[in-house]
Order: sequence, then C-alpha cells, then structure tokens
Amino acid sequence: MVRTQIRDTLAFAPGEVILYPGVPGPREPLYRVREGLVRIQHVDEEGNALTLRFVRPGDFFGEEVLTGSERGYFAEAVTRVSVEALDPDGLGPDLFNELTHRLVLALHQGYRRIERLVNQRLKNRIAAALLEFLETDVADRDAEGRPLIRLTHDDLAAAVGSVRETVTKVVGELAREGYIKSGYGKITLLDLKGLAELARRKE
Amino acid sequence: MVRTQIRDTLAFAPGEVILYPGVPGPREPLYRVREGLVRIQHVDEEGNALTLRFVRPGDFFGEEVLTGSERGYFAEAVTRVSVEALDPDGLGPDLFNELTHRLVLALHQGYRRIERLVNQRLKNRIAAALLEFLETDVADRDAEGRPLIRLTHDDLAAAVGSVRETVTKVVGELAREGYIKSGYGKITLLDLKGLAELARRKE
Repeated sequence: MVRTQIRDTLAFAPGEVILYPGVPGPREPLYRVREGLVRIQHVDEEGNALTLRFVRPGDFFGEEVLTGSERGYFAEAVTRVSVEALDPDGLGPDLFNELTHRLVLALHQGYRRIERLVNQRLKNRIAAALLEFLETDVADRDAEGRPLIRLTHDDLAAAVGSVRETVTKVVGELAREGYIKSGYGKITLLDLKGLAELARRKE
Repeated sequence: MVRTQIRDTLAFAPGEVILYPGVPGPREPLYRVREGLVRIQHVDEEGNALTLRFVRPGDFFGEEVLTGSERGYFAEAVTRVSVEALDPDGLGPDLFNELTHRLVLALHQGYRRIERLVNQRLKNRIAAALLEFLETDVADRDAEGRPLIRLTHDDLAAAVGSVRETVTKVVGELAREGYIKSGYGKITLLDLKGLAELARRKE
C-alpha cells in the first residue's frame, strides 16, 4: 500500500486559529503552508501576544508532533491561508529532507530574532520587521505602486516584542522622518533604502 | 561500500573555538556533541558576546552545512568537549531522524528564549539560566554537596542577553536574598525552590 503523504488541504480565514497550545494528540498532522501567512504566537496570562515565528509558503509548522513535546503557542492565519495536513509518520525521504532544511532555516531565523531583541532598539527592530513583511502575503501596493504592508499596530507590536502604545509612538516617529506613511491597518513604505539602513544599525 | 557516518571524533579544551562565522565549505562536517557543553555564540563588532544556544550531549551543531546558509556565530567549547564529525550527506535514516527531532527541540528552546527576553526581567532570566545550567556539564557540587555552577559573570551575561556589570549587580542581589552564594568563577545554588519560583515569574 502506498501511503499518501498529504492527508488533506485546509483553508483558513484571516484571524482563524489553526493550532492551540497543548500536548499534540496521537493523530495530529504536521502542517505545511501552501499559500498565505501563518503566525506562531505565544499569548501570556494577561493576553499579551508575542509572535515567535512567521510561517510562509513551503515552511512547516506543528513540528512538535515529531517529538511529542508540549506546544506552547497558537498557530493563527494572518491572511487567507491554505495548508497541507501531512502524516508525520508517512513522510517520504524528499519531504523529510525538506522539513529538516526548513527547520535549520527556522532555527537560524530564531537566532537573528534573539540578536535583534538583545542588541537593537525598537525603532531599528520595527524597520527590520517592515522589510521582512514585504516578503510575505501581507505585502501589497498602493494606487501609486508604492509597497505597503497590511498590518495593525498590534500585529507589529507582537512581531517585534513590544506593546501597541510604544509601537504607535515609534511608527509616528518613522512617519515624521519620512520613512513610512501610516494608515488604518496599513503602513506604506516610502524609503526602502533608509529602512534597510535603520534595520542594519543598532540605534 | 558502506558509508561511515562518523568521520572523526574530536576533542576541544574549554574556550577553544570549534566553528567560525562564514559560509560553510563543501567538505565541512555536521557536528554532534558526545560529552561536554558547546555554546553557539554571536559576537558583535564591539566584541559583545550573546549566547544563542547551548549544545549538550546528543545535540547537533553546524547544521547550516545542510542548507549552505551563512553561519553567523562561533561554536565554542565551554567545558572539555568531545564531538563527532559527521558526513552530512552520509547520514543513515536513524541519525537523520534524530537530527530532525533535535532541531525541533532546539527551535522550541529558541521560542522560550524569545519569550523570556521579551517578558521577563533580568533577575528572573538569571534564575532560569542558573537552573538550566544545572542540567549541563558546568554543574558540580561543593564540599557540602550543594549544587554549583562553574561559570563567570561574563558567561552568565552572554547567556541571558545582558552585560557583566548588570549581571554582577543582580547576582549580588540574589546572594543577599539567600538564593545563591557567589564565588570566583562559580555560583552555589542555595535555594532551588526559590529559584524555580523566580524563573516562573515575570518580576
């Protein structure tokens, strides 16, 4: 009998929760994103959200089914999302190989996140985050063709490890300095070169 | 021809650098720790060290040979260390499977690190780090059988994402409060329950 690697393809609307914290059950699938953006998010007792990782097309999540360890996060659709549910015990060598590669990249992404949190000021972290979002499904163009990001200040705060009030202040600063234009649920990037320079610097 | 998975077993003295930053070469091995403690450390232009991950027996490092991506860190022996150099293209299914499991655990360890950096005060992060070190090769016992950690304040600062001066101040505070006793290059843990309580709390 040939085992099917992909059990199912599932669709989620923006804001829908795909995975809840807890110990994975014996029949839980491993997920792989086909389209859209998924966020891996820790929420503390007071309801403060912290994004641990963004999962983009081709990346896997729910990998704790492989170890049986407790999941400490929610997985949530940021945009419209299509995911494949895979049988973790039925992965062929190619897909298993791909999973391992993606895990290495996710681990190194985590390293960069830790470096930024320790070494960079919030303003520089926000510049870096805005540029990273440009490579995801929340990126768009305005009427004049300028790149924009469809995100709330809450989303941005969770992504950089801060709170909305502080992020709103810094976003205002970046807007006054001409790097961005901030609108309701969207941020237009006016000076990509300037933002890249900010993202490289510490302060 | 049967391929040998383990090319070599190498020994390193405390403080020795095992891997330098850069793009991995075509013949670079993947490493697995047999004995001792290895630290994965980012060092910025001003020479400030930040520990990204501790690698313990059974864990792998140098995993960027699998993706060819640039290594942004140094791997350094903390204690006397024995490591296996593996052929990344010659891993058998068992070892490859084990690598994937260990990568999942390392990724989740990174998540906890990010949570602590964002949510916890330094004092609580130090308590958590001291307890984690108890599970590694820097742990020892004093003459009275009390657990101790052989680490400098510099090592501890790099592990929690801070600087020595600040860590020394907080270590003094923890000592005055009876949680620990601080000596030259070592910290004796006097109140494990109290430290565990601190490690759980935010502040």
